[in-house]
Amino acid sequence: MLASLLPALRGLSLPLRLQLWDGKAIDLGPAPSVTLAINDPEIVADLAHPSLDLLGAAYVEGRLDLDGPLDEVIRIGDELSRALGKDETAAPLPESHDKATDAEAISYHYDLSNDFYQLWLDRDMVYSCGYFETGTEDLDQAQQAKLRHLCRKLRLKPGERLLDVGCGWGGLARFAAREFGVEVLGITLSREQLKLGRERVAAEGLEGQVQLELMDYRDLPRDGQFDKVVSVGMFEHVGQANLPLYCRQLSEMVRPGGLVMNHGITSRHIDGRPVGHGAGEFIGRYVFPHGELPHLVKIGACISESGLEIVDVESLRLHYARTLDFWSRRLEANLDEARRLVPERALRIWRVYLAGCAYGFRHNWINLHQILATKPHEDGSHELPWSRADLYR
Amino acid sequence: MLASLLPALRGLSLPLRLQLWDGKAIDLGPAPSVTLAINDPEIVADLAHPSLDLLGAAYVEGRLDLDGPLDEVIRIGDELSRALGKDETAAPLPESHDKATDAEAISYHYDLSNDFYQLWLDRDMVYSCGYFETGTEDLDQAQQAKLRHLCRKLRLKPGERLLDVGCGWGGLARFAAREFGVEVLGITLSREQLKLGRERVAAEGLEGQVQLELMDYRDLPRDGQFDKVVSVGMFEHVGQANLPLYCRQLSEMVRPGGLVMNHGITSRHIDGRPVGHGAGEFIGRYVFPHGELPHLVKIGACISESGLEIVDVESLRLHYARTLDFWSRRLEANLDEARRLVPERALRIWRVYLAGCAYGFRHNWINLHQILATKPHEDGSHELPWSRADLYR
Repeated sequence: MLASLLPALRGLSLPLRLQLWDGKAIDLGPAPSVTLAINDPEIVADLAHPSLDLLGAAYVEGRLDLDGPLDEVIRIGDELSRALGKDETAAPLPESHDKATDAEAISYHYDLSNDFYQLWLDRDMVYSCGYFETGTEDLDQAQQAKLRHLCRKLRLKPGERLLDVGCGWGGLARFAAREFGVEVLGITLSREQLKLGRERVAAEGLEGQVQLELMDYRDLPRDGQFDKVVSVGMFEHVGQANLPLYCRQLSEMVRPGGLVMNHGITSRHIDGRPVGHGAGEFIGRYVFPHGELPHLVKIGACISESGLEIVDVESLRLHYARTLDFWSRRLEANLDEARRLVPERALRIWRVYLAGCAYGFRHNWINLHQILATKPHEDGSHELPWSRADLYR
Repeated sequence: MLASLLPALRGLSLPLRLQLWDGKAIDLGPAPSVTLAINDPEIVADLAHPSLDLLGAAYVEGRLDLDGPLDEVIRIGDELSRALGKDETAAPLPESHDKATDAEAISYHYDLSNDFYQLWLDRDMVYSCGYFETGTEDLDQAQQAKLRHLCRKLRLKPGERLLDVGCGWGGLARFAAREFGVEVLGITLSREQLKLGRERVAAEGLEGQVQLELMDYRDLPRDGQFDKVVSVGMFEHVGQANLPLYCRQLSEMVRPGGLVMNHGITSRHIDGRPVGHGAGEFIGRYVFPHGELPHLVKIGACISESGLEIVDVESLRLHYARTLDFWSRRLEANLDEARRLVPERALRIWRVYLAGCAYGFRHNWINLHQILATKPHEDGSHELPWSRADLYR
């Protein structure tokens, strides 16, 4: 089986060594930088038509082992899949998104281990795209800059009420309260995030300003009580079918004249057809169950139809690639410690997911858009300044 | 007929005087600021179910005369139409957009009279939304700032090749050549714009850098010869059916790594259903024949599907309201001169169109979006700076 594959594999001239179950090693190109150890001979059949999903799954399940820099591993996996993989054109099927399913999906990912996330996230545990104002910042600086960029876009003023939908460990909630003097309600479906989030609020003495709750976005009253609403890395979990409901919910929770910021990952194609052989399947199976990425114009349509007016959109695609580079490198530098915190299988998933998503953002398979919208007053007026210059002072 | 209408009209308590054909005057509310002179008794039937289209048409055709501040006229017309008009929910039918139809439609509006446009546009004759950085600028300042804002967003560098699709009288082309050192090809379908545009290029000695041509966007070669493409106030004329073609055209004329800016008027609703009783019909009939406004997400979808990546969107809705206030006030201050330049019927059309569109932008019936997109390199990289801070230095 392998023998019949070797001409095609060698034709790609990849810097890859195959380490076989019987001790033999085959170099597919000069100066291999990556070694793929095949523990299970049955995997060889998959190599005839590889995909990032097949390769990733084999690694997660221990049928393959990897040695070499992870970004190089991903690049080689992509080249293999593009050269030999089957064409995929079908968009994924819609996912179920009732409250129980969503709670379970969120728990699967975010309740993994607070200590594990602390190992490679920034000091404020901001688990979303950083903002590199010049490209020279470190991770802590980029995450603080991102929090400030969001607060500035929301034009937060002391005393305002901010809702943070999908608040994670509360990094943005605490930053907004501390630096901009607002009152924040943050909600999450992750018990682990809530626990550590509340501890950090208490440690900063912000209990009077920041309230964190375990709550589904559908359970919030639609009474326009918030001046501003922010949602970071959240609409990816909502599902295409629920996006209109989700946007109406945000729109009806903000007062007229208020602002809503949606920051999240968007798909490359409007119809959801995949980019990157099998990358999406791997993410859906192992990383973000029930996750669905809408295209910018799909989430934009739902925002518009909810009565909000889109006023500012910014792509931060390459910022997310760089953020994931930082996360991946920090995890790779702490693998021994990580093994003490999470099962080997989870570690394998997170390793390829972080390096793979960096690659996916860099290669324009997925994007990151910050979409700012206002809810205009009845007469069409709003409360935004004439220009965006205030964001850059 | 009128007697039976009066209770309903009086119930609105509008500051409106009806001056009848027989010399009688009826005040519908206290302290009338506007007088509507009914020259033709048959118009009274229309007042039972008024719309901005019916009222505007009656004024254009001389069956009504108006006296009073135009912004107040429009406000009263809107209140009448909302209170007594029929509900409209149907989206307008698609318009024809072959090359001959488009050329005729453009000529109808833009070939009206260069001298007339010079009467109320800024000194550079920029016939699109100005950019009020602080809200205190005059019209000339706002248009110069808009040209600079566009050039900055396009990150123009000396020696680059810029295509200006729908170049008007060449204000942007000359500005970009003079201030940013680029070479510009500008195309228009208006012979009058071309004539005066070329004179102004010559007067500034920019013939070596700026070339203006009478050309349809469909006739440009798709050879990626331009570093940057800009289109201002153009996609409103393209038509919904041709938007995908139009975007593919722009996408294929720009080199990989280049930028495309689409600046234009967008509709309130995605399905095109009207806002403002009959305002759209009036514009289509008298002002911009065959004009069609896409929603932001519709033009955004076409841009995305053409292979471009949307990186920056900015709404300038209230900037356009203010721009139109300036234009309308300047025209109102020069009515005698205007009457010497264009027929009375055209003057009536332009008077209510300018004041009416100011009202429409202010009340969120229509919007203005600047949509910047890049054509990424094969490997997903692009040439934009990390942040938008350079736009505000």
